[in-house]
Amino acid sequence: MSSENSENQKRSSSGNSAEGKKYNQKQRNNKHRQQPKNNRRTESRHPDKNAKPIFKNPVKTVSRRGRKAASRLKIIPLGGLEQIGMNITAFEYEDSIVVVDCGLSFPEDDMLGIDLVIPDVTYLKENISKVKGFVITHGHEDHIGALPYVLKEINVPIYSTKLTLALIENKLKEHNLVRTTKMKEVHHGQVINLGDFSIEFIKTNHSIQDASALAIYSPAGIVVHTGDFKVDYTPVFGDAIDLQRLAEIGKKGVLALMCDSTNAERPGFTMSERTVGRVFDNLFNEHKSSRIIIATFASNVDRVQQIINTAYRFGRKVAVEGRSMVNVIGTASELGYLRIPDNTLIEIDQVKNYPDEQMVLITTGSQGESMAALSRMAANIHKKITIKPNDAIIFSSHPIPGNEKAVSKVINELSMKGAKVVFQDAHVSGHACQEEIKLIYSLVRPKYAIPVHGEYRHLTAQKHVVEDLGIPKENIFILSSGNVLELDDQGAEITGSVHTGAILVDGLGVGDVGNIVLRDRQHLAEDGIMIVVMTLERHSNVVLAGPDIVSRGFVYVRESEDLMDEAREVVEEALDSCLSRNITDWGRIKIMVKEALSDFLWKRTKRSPMILPIIMEA
Amino acid sequence: MSSENSENQKRSSSGNSAEGKKYNQKQRNNKHRQQPKNNRRTESRHPDKNAKPIFKNPVKTVSRRGRKAASRLKIIPLGGLEQIGMNITAFEYEDSIVVVDCGLSFPEDDMLGIDLVIPDVTYLKENISKVKGFVITHGHEDHIGALPYVLKEINVPIYSTKLTLALIENKLKEHNLVRTTKMKEVHHGQVINLGDFSIEFIKTNHSIQDASALAIYSPAGIVVHTGDFKVDYTPVFGDAIDLQRLAEIGKKGVLALMCDSTNAERPGFTMSERTVGRVFDNLFNEHKSSRIIIATFASNVDRVQQIINTAYRFGRKVAVEGRSMVNVIGTASELGYLRIPDNTLIEIDQVKNYPDEQMVLITTGSQGESMAALSRMAANIHKKITIKPNDAIIFSSHPIPGNEKAVSKVINELSMKGAKVVFQDAHVSGHACQEEIKLIYSLVRPKYAIPVHGEYRHLTAQKHVVEDLGIPKENIFILSSGNVLELDDQGAEITGSVHTGAILVDGLGVGDVGNIVLRDRQHLAEDGIMIVVMTLERHSNVVLAGPDIVSRGFVYVRESEDLMDEAREVVEEALDSCLSRNITDWGRIKIMVKEALSDFLWKRTKRSPMILPIIMEA
Repeated sequence: MSSENSENQKRSSSGNSAEGKKYNQKQRNNKHRQQPKNNRRTESRHPDKNAKPIFKNPVKTVSRRGRKAASRLKIIPLGGLEQIGMNITAFEYEDSIVVVDCGLSFPEDDMLGIDLVIPDVTYLKENISKVKGFVITHGHEDHIGALPYVLKEINVPIYSTKLTLALIENKLKEHNLVRTTKMKEVHHGQVINLGDFSIEFIKTNHSIQDASALAIYSPAGIVVHTGDFKVDYTPVFGDAIDLQRLAEIGKKGVLALMCDSTNAERPGFTMSERTVGRVFDNLFNEHKSSRIIIATFASNVDRVQQIINTAYRFGRKVAVEGRSMVNVIGTASELGYLRIPDNTLIEIDQVKNYPDEQMVLITTGSQGESMAALSRMAANIHKKITIKPNDAIIFSSHPIPGNEKAVSKVINELSMKGAKVVFQDAHVSGHACQEEIKLIYSLVRPKYAIPVHGEYRHLTAQKHVVEDLGIPKENIFILSSGNVLELDDQGAEITGSVHTGAILVDGLGVGDVGNIVLRDRQHLAEDGIMIVVMTLERHSNVVLAGPDIVSRGFVYVRESEDLMDEAREVVEEALDSCLSRNITDWGRIKIMVKEALSDFLWKRTKRSPMILPIIMEA
Repeated sequence: MSSENSENQKRSSSGNSAEGKKYNQKQRNNKHRQQPKNNRRTESRHPDKNAKPIFKNPVKTVSRRGRKAASRLKIIPLGGLEQIGMNITAFEYEDSIVVVDCGLSFPEDDMLGIDLVIPDVTYLKENISKVKGFVITHGHEDHIGALPYVLKEINVPIYSTKLTLALIENKLKEHNLVRTTKMKEVHHGQVINLGDFSIEFIKTNHSIQDASALAIYSPAGIVVHTGDFKVDYTPVFGDAIDLQRLAEIGKKGVLALMCDSTNAERPGFTMSERTVGRVFDNLFNEHKSSRIIIATFASNVDRVQQIINTAYRFGRKVAVEGRSMVNVIGTASELGYLRIPDNTLIEIDQVKNYPDEQMVLITTGSQGESMAALSRMAANIHKKITIKPNDAIIFSSHPIPGNEKAVSKVINELSMKGAKVVFQDAHVSGHACQEEIKLIYSLVRPKYAIPVHGEYRHLTAQKHVVEDLGIPKENIFILSSGNVLELDDQGAEITGSVHTGAILVDGLGVGDVGNIVLRDRQHLAEDGIMIVVMTLERHSNVVLAGPDIVSRGFVYVRESEDLMDEAREVVEEALDSCLSRNITDWGRIKIMVKEALSDFLWKRTKRSPMILPIIMEA
């Protein structure tokens, strides 16, 4: 990882891989631009201060001092809309493409056996010569998780803040991609030039440090992308969101704002992360004689910092458990994002040497993930920590939708061991609620609103908020993945679509499980399988062996012998009927056997196992 | 269904089935008791009025005027603890058993393909001669849903209120059990005698009408069972919960209170159902020009009543969609629990004849159930209703834990069609929060507390509430299914356990899917199946056909030909190696083939499909 960036950065041409070389060669032919001055506006864009709602009269055209934009800007989401996760958006202007984020999503309930889902980047591969790099807003999985997979196909540089890059590097190590990947560190306030684009990183607040909003300068106008954010006036570490800079850019005239919609259904304002610290103080006070175990998100370094602070104040030692937690805490404290007082952190093996009232354990598993540390403790299969009636276990988290039952299971198991489980108040969201969204719009005052990050319901909720602010309906775009939104200060419209999709990762397989395999898995999961095998002589169709029936996941065979015997008879009858009618087409035989068995089983059990007739040739 | 009960009811001896006859014969030998007088207490049980907390000094022994109880009362939950659903509890005193509720539960996430889960009633079958009947608190599935299955094994009479019995009857019709089942209607305030027990039905409030708490009088003392309840001072239909009667029984001296824990984690007081009516008024006002579609629970007749009332006030017609909704509304209005003004209800086919602003559609699907009416509308596969941009769709419900994602999916689909989705405020819970729980304890003042209805976390939450009220820890019992709690006024202890369990229903199969089948389904769901078939000659072990490989749910075969070819080679090698080493035991051959293939696939894909070697004999 290098941090050689500067405002007028020259890109290194030492691409390591073949793709890298090709990319750099192409790149050298592009004109490099400084932060474009042509976005400054000649007239004030402030509408009458007394006019309400504030966006009733957005300025429609902006005359420019600089070169007239020859083309329109294209915004092409390649994922991340209509869903949580898999955020990736291409910004294209003439021969330049910049990609914001490259996240994964976690499988839906019907994606049986799938580990994770990554975006299909065919469009980027087809336009590889234009792609200048990935610009990453922050280090959460839904913004960086697909990089190790996508980089294997598109090896372009990655630009982001220090902690974000460190977390990406941890990932790339596991995939042996560090050597071949160029990573460039950017500071908040800094601008990088990528082809026709300049990108400014702007400090925001979120449930992970070093999160950025982006001001994306193109000849067609400025787009502000908030990334995931909240407004925290009193953050635990570092500065509050740079509202002044957002206002300043707003003053210049912003073409479009792409704003986080995750909490757009929630009225009000998200509380400061710092309020959670006070909750910890109270909880530690309340549970002075207990061992305290706190489960939270590994990546929420500020949360961990506050736990450590409170632990220190109460004279407790801190141990950390769970692989991702240990990794993030290691990275964050190495880089100075986490300050751990001396003699506070102890190894997990040392926990047994301290009395309960002097221990705090920070652990993964706040989402009830079955293999996470806390779940293993709850299930009594953790090697080093045994839950005791004197434990106070604090969930410093909210269940992500879909995890409610898993979390409840862990809470029940912990409660059964006599532990006190605290499940309220020790968490705040990392996303902006309605009042914060309104604040950002009021500072940035974009011509167009493009709600991002969230399911359709959340995007719609932001749309309603934005309508109330006075942005006309026709200037609000709820995009779908693949939509090509072309815009400049003359107008904006969806002009087409590019190929996008979700690629399923299962074990080492990337994309080898698709709809057919998933449908089979669903069918197998529902009612199991019944296999009918028989061996026929090549030409005569004489039955040499079978038909035999084997089933799995259908019925407990030992207690259903009658049913299985009858099933065998049904199959034999169907086969005999075929052979006696001189049906020699094995395909037809299979269908007839399958149908006969399927009908029989439905009548008898109202179930439809997968039926798989196999005819062997001898 | 008959309503021939009276305080001193004689049981009819016209049992229809063999079991019925046996049961009735046995029953006639039991002494019939009036409502026992021996529970009246000789001394005031009120502790010093100034003493706080109020339960600090519960009276420990109660001298009795009447016959000294020869035995202790046994309370045996056969389901419903540590889980939501499957409520069924046996109360046993000497030769009498009364069973409170007989519910089903819905399958957990890992119970693939299972339709529903019912309790194992082996204990009742083994003691059938003692079982006097089912006493049902209210008509929700988790309290009545297992009856059609359990009645086939234990045909005893069912006692409950009018609407509850009507809903049970609807169920029994589907299972052809109406003719063979005795159902006796009971009014609130009425007492029925069942062997050594007398049971008094006490009016409560819940999200279904005609819900009852039970005062269970036994020679060993009185147990009050709240059923599912809330305290609603201003119910939509009928009376508020009979707090006076609960107080009066409390005055007599209550041995144990079994109280609903569902909302025991929530502070405060659950709002009145009536408040939802005002929300409907506001929402109808807000959406005067929209068609209004409201999704709610079919069984919440009061909710439906309020929708109809508001619709009537706003001059709208009401149509009803969804099988269970149509059924419940039919039953409820027939019995007078729902009052529909003339010319208000129209057929679903008539909807098209009315303008949007004159229509309200009440529908099932508030939990995102994939086959429910609203989900079908959202997915554009409903035959009669098409969602339009002018629709306002109100979810008058909260997602039950586990349903969040399904509900969100429906909301997203509806939003995509341009409909306005309202998801807040139009619902109140049917369960008591902490202040209501405290109220009931303060009226009933039991010696022992037995939290019921809820997962372990909820039972624990009630325990904490009850401890704060001053009931000593050792008098609070969190039971597990199967526990035998023996109690009288001298003491209470868990003395043993009886067989209990969950029986899985899949299609017509009741209990034919167990752990082995479920594990197979989970394995199949995760990574699919790979079947290896070969035909060997009986004695020589010469390979006549195969080995062939067929896979389902593992990988998209057409795009993985190399992998499949290599897999075939691995199998052939393993088989050759067996045969060349003269291994003739087919079991051993199968194991070796399986292991070789499994190792290969893990190395290549990091996946573990089920591998099923089949050797046919020719």
